Amino acid sequence: MHERARSPEDKARRSEDLLVAAEAIALETGGVRFVTVAAVTERAGLHRTGARRYYASKEELLLELAERGWKQWAESIRGSLDGRSGLAPNDVATVLATTITALPVFCDLLAHVAMTLEGDVDMERARKFKINSFAAHDELVGALAASSNLDIPRVRALVAATIALAGSSWQVSHPTPSLAALYQQVPEWGHAAMDFEPRLRLLLGALADGLANLETVAET
Amino acid sequence: MHERARSPEDKARRSEDLLVAAEAIALETGGVRFVTVAAVTERAGLHRTGARRYYASKEELLLELAERGWKQWAESIRGSLDGRSGLAPNDVATVLATTITALPVFCDLLAHVAMTLEGDVDMERARKFKINSFAAHDELVGALAASSNLDIPRVRALVAATIALAGSSWQVSHPTPSLAALYQQVPEWGHAAMDFEPRLRLLLGALADGLANLETVAET
Repeated sequence: MHERARSPEDKARRSEDLLVAAEAIALETGGVRFVTVAAVTERAGLHRTGARRYYASKEELLLELAERGWKQWAESIRGSLDGRSGLAPNDVATVLATTITALPVFCDLLAHVAMTLEGDVDMERARKFKINSFAAHDELVGALAASSNLDIPRVRALVAATIALAGSSWQVSHPTPSLAALYQQVPEWGHAAMDFEPRLRLLLGALADGLANLETVAET
Repeated sequence: MHERARSPEDKARRSEDLLVAAEAIALETGGVRFVTVAAVTERAGLHRTGARRYYASKEELLLELAERGWKQWAESIRGSLDGRSGLAPNDVATVLATTITALPVFCDLLAHVAMTLEGDVDMERARKFKINSFAAHDELVGALAASSNLDIPRVRALVAATIALAGSSWQVSHPTPSLAALYQQVPEWGHAAMDFEPRLRLLLGALADGLANLETVAET
């Protein structure tokens, strides 16, 4: 057991330790649905009640993990663009598909955020999430538009589709244990569910080309 | 109170009454998340324990409602095609967007099916759902391909995107009560969440054009 956190730096580190522990458990168990505060607390080496000082609930912890995921995605896109310019629509789609696929726990969280997490925390926590996730969103949209020949409304539409497709594809390609057992009996059903990244690349590439060919896409 | 159902026809009617009641409650309350077996039973005019003879759990009832939604969607697409042929990619996108938007409870259920419902029922119930929903899926894909100049793999990709986009857009555009309260304070966040049908039309139209322009789309 660590000592009680005393300085702001200690607190920030503990808070990050808990997020890292939650992410590791989600990866090992097959999804954030299997994450519990007790397991996260133990994994992070905190006292049984220690996590409550950082996150009032599992939902708060997971929403914080999603917020961190938005920041990581924006950073990963910036790194992947690395000063390139004039990218074709299909290149933008590839950057989006590659970077989001590399963040599987974020993909898993996307569906949970809209369905439960945002509504299960108090309003100020939801507000903080909205502010920070929109900031990361606007940053990555701006970076992609500046590096490509797609304008802001087209990139925004493509990013919205990326989130929806990656979020729902992750759920379909990571079935619950009982459904996984059914897929073992009927392999073609499982096969249809599992092609996460190729499907995402195909759809986003075609969508990017289609958006580029539209005369105009309205600001939303 | 109705009398106890005796004939197979009575049982089928009761079972359908329960689905109709569940759908009505989902529409009135703002989503299937608010549906309870007790409310459905009362609404359908059954005895308190009557629903259990038809559905062992809320999850079974909702999965049955989703299965019915697949059939309704396939029928609605067939009706909307009505012998037309040679449809352009954008017309196919319009048929998909219009017909699925007209089935809001089905849109709501799409996210729940993959995240929880399929895994929360027993394997035989999940198998029945898979068989019947794949049958409706294959039927509507075949009808759209036969009526348009898109081939089966392209229509299949477009339908997969429709499901993912409609499913996640429904969740985003129907926030929980606490999130709705936040949107009243910050209207631009709510505004971004609410453009369900125009966003779906834009994305599916662009995707259909992009798919049509690809040299080939592999069978999946």
